[in-house]
Amino acid sequence: MVAIEFTRELHSRFGIDFNNVDLLEEAFTHSSYANEHRELGVHNNERLEFLGDAVLELTVSEYLFKKYPHVPEGKLTRMRAAAVQTRSFASFSREAHFDQYIRLGNGEENAGARHRDTLLEDLFEAFCGALFLDQGRKR
Amino acid sequence: MVAIEFTRELHSRFGIDFNNVDLLEEAFTHSSYANEHRELGVHNNERLEFLGDAVLELTVSEYLFKKYPHVPEGKLTRMRAAAVQTRSFASFSREAHFDQYIRLGNGEENAGARHRDTLLEDLFEAFCGALFLDQGRKR
Repeated sequence: MVAIEFTRELHSRFGIDFNNVDLLEEAFTHSSYANEHRELGVHNNERLEFLGDAVLELTVSEYLFKKYPHVPEGKLTRMRAAAVQTRSFASFSREAHFDQYIRLGNGEENAGARHRDTLLEDLFEAFCGALFLDQGRKR
Repeated sequence: MVAIEFTRELHSRFGIDFNNVDLLEEAFTHSSYANEHRELGVHNNERLEFLGDAVLELTVSEYLFKKYPHVPEGKLTRMRAAAVQTRSFASFSREAHFDQYIRLGNGEENAGARHRDTLLEDLFEAFCGALFLDQGRKR
């Protein structure tokens, strides 16, 4: 189960309340945890990451398109690439304390995966995928 | 100006009516036309193509995610790559008769660019970008 303190934090810091908490739980389940706990039948967050990647791509694209009405396509593309870097999304995950709540398998936990940029990037994308399914793009 | 018969065709074949016809016009303006007619101050369709690319990425991702609830991420990614090929989008452009309506400069026209897959792909993406701005994702 997703920790109660986490859902409280999402509400108090970001005004986000999930209708379907299962989606949130899926977003915070690393494949290593799902593999180690097959008896629970939980889904890992990779499908949500696939979706969230596209959600973020459009969100950033729309933002840049509207904010810079006179910037040509080539430069917009470079700006988008700079915005969606691993490091940016990993830092969003940390700021939101996502790193404290992801469920990892023991092997990955011991290897320090919880603090790895690529894992935190994927987690941020999965969270955005879950949020999109739960609430749509317009908040 | 966008040809009247084209806006009629969009309405009758696809039920699409643009609120802002300027967006439609921008989508159907190739850079070669804008360059040859600087006095008109028209925008080419490259910025809309930038946006439309991301719109299509999310549309295809959401469709695959929901249609195939048990397919893992790796396979979804391969299916998405197959779906967003140049050839697919170019054929959509042809089916919708977009190739008849894009405005090209003389040089590109004479070089046969109107029938080129890459141009028709870009045109389809630009159209989707314009449609997204005009009407949002949910139709």
